[in-house]
Amino acid sequence: MATIRVPEMPPSPFEDALDLKNAFEGWGTDEKTVIGILSHRDEGQRKKIMSAYEELYNENLINRLEKELSGDLQEAIYFWMFDPIERSVIMANIAARKSIDYQVIVEIACVNSPDELLAIKKVYHARYKQSLEEDVASHTTGDFRKLLVALVSTYRYDGVEINETLAELEAKTLHNSIVALESISPYDRKEINGSIDQITAEILRESIEQKSFHHDEIVRILSTRSRAQLNATFNHYKDEYGTSISKDLSTSLSNEYVSALRIAIRCIISPQKYYEKVLRHAMKKAGTDEDALTRVIVTRAEKDLEDIKELYQKRTNVTLESAVHKEISGNYKKFLLALVEE
Amino acid sequence: MATIRVPEMPPSPFEDALDLKNAFEGWGTDEKTVIGILSHRDEGQRKKIMSAYEELYNENLINRLEKELSGDLQEAIYFWMFDPIERSVIMANIAARKSIDYQVIVEIACVNSPDELLAIKKVYHARYKQSLEEDVASHTTGDFRKLLVALVSTYRYDGVEINETLAELEAKTLHNSIVALESISPYDRKEINGSIDQITAEILRESIEQKSFHHDEIVRILSTRSRAQLNATFNHYKDEYGTSISKDLSTSLSNEYVSALRIAIRCIISPQKYYEKVLRHAMKKAGTDEDALTRVIVTRAEKDLEDIKELYQKRTNVTLESAVHKEISGNYKKFLLALVEE
Repeated sequence: MATIRVPEMPPSPFEDALDLKNAFEGWGTDEKTVIGILSHRDEGQRKKIMSAYEELYNENLINRLEKELSGDLQEAIYFWMFDPIERSVIMANIAARKSIDYQVIVEIACVNSPDELLAIKKVYHARYKQSLEEDVASHTTGDFRKLLVALVSTYRYDGVEINETLAELEAKTLHNSIVALESISPYDRKEINGSIDQITAEILRESIEQKSFHHDEIVRILSTRSRAQLNATFNHYKDEYGTSISKDLSTSLSNEYVSALRIAIRCIISPQKYYEKVLRHAMKKAGTDEDALTRVIVTRAEKDLEDIKELYQKRTNVTLESAVHKEISGNYKKFLLALVEE
Repeated sequence: MATIRVPEMPPSPFEDALDLKNAFEGWGTDEKTVIGILSHRDEGQRKKIMSAYEELYNENLINRLEKELSGDLQEAIYFWMFDPIERSVIMANIAARKSIDYQVIVEIACVNSPDELLAIKKVYHARYKQSLEEDVASHTTGDFRKLLVALVSTYRYDGVEINETLAELEAKTLHNSIVALESISPYDRKEINGSIDQITAEILRESIEQKSFHHDEIVRILSTRSRAQLNATFNHYKDEYGTSISKDLSTSLSNEYVSALRIAIRCIISPQKYYEKVLRHAMKKAGTDEDALTRVIVTRAEKDLEDIKELYQKRTNVTLESAVHKEISGNYKKFLLALVEE
């Protein structure tokens, strides 16, 4: 369930455009008015306000907002103005830069439905004249690349049918692969560089090939199976091996690849639980992770932020509102709270 | 340009359906009548005949055709009855079985436009309740899997813009990778299995990792860049290194993976030239490759078979008609010739 409140009788888009224009004029920007209007308009209304503003003042509202605002508030309102598909496209493009922000890429690939992801990739083509696949692939390497590119490329089946036998089989494959990756062969450590009488090249090669085989199996299953099938597989995993797959992964090597795997699994199991955790971490650190806080609130406010709030309160015994209230300040806080409060 | 001839004033779909029904009744099937009708009806007309037949006789025409016909003629007419997307879906599903027919998978992934491939993947979901990606991935392993899954997964950018600097850079990357793969390190041969005093584990591991890095780069470029960009890259490759990339690959290790790479490159450069070669090979072998012959003629007859015929004649000094005439026989020949002859 969404959290944003829209007035029962909202002003016309032209009135809103006029009020925004007035808020921009004169000494300094009247940020409170800007927040008061935009935080209480839904996706369709914001689109209409943008058209009305363009028509009246021959100026792009988003560009003007970028000029008038700054800092975290600017970023939050900037992302808020777009519809969910365009917003994901812009976030994906920013994330697919040289120092890749893999968390955002994995979220976009695994939280959206197959058809939403496809729509994002189409708009990405139109906007950037290249594909999301090539942007992600050209800034990553190794197993990390294989995983990220596979997740953004795939067009999963979206049906609810489940093959229980396959789920059982692939739970086993995943478990074997995770166990194998944890028990690194002694021949595979960086520190070995002396002469190795006892070891044949063949044994060493097999150990490396086995490792690559296990990575490949994990990536294949996670990136090609449907969400319903994967959830059945993860359930079998827990029933059979006693711990959840994401816990098992936590105890294994901690690197970007494993971390991306865990994010993918969490997003596939439950986007709401995943986002609850992101919010918790964003406000737990010394210093707030404003990017994460903004991203979750802005992208989920019109979707399922109400459910995420419930999970947050159950987990922390604090409401999300009061956590946000304590954590940040100023008009940035005013804006996020306007989206969070039902 | 297409090759099939359609009568200026074709009979109504109901007349055709009636004539087909009559051809099925009585002693044996009147195959000539079946061929005479179906080979001279375009995609839209065949669809209407199927509806009319279903309406009149409460029977699926394709099922009836499968019962009435047999052998190569049956297969050719079966595939002919579908529209191009459905036909590709069925061919892809047959090809994605255990002993994977990678040539067909690569053709479907690389000859079709990004949006055609997408339509194929959507219909695949609807028809088989799973994705093409998972079917291909679960029947392949290693580098071969990486390549095939990447080719079927990707949603390439379809624009004509070219980045020349990138083309130059990636031509170099491809060349370096191919050269590196050809010069197999002595430490990487299967036959080494004794003690290896002189070799450190580190050197061996690096050699294997390097190899995997080069494979990954080839797959990344081929599977993510747009067709226009790849053609610019292949042109740079030839200008800079004197031979075409597919020739360079021919001299390297010959295995399924390299063969799939070459097919992908040829399909991206020119589907027509590629199909001309497939036809030539299908009729060059001791014994005909009927599957390939049928596939090319049936799938291209309504698209570009005229262009493929011209290329064939230039290359062999024989018309495709006379080659087909010599190569095969019976009503299968009659049907294919009806599609080939303008």
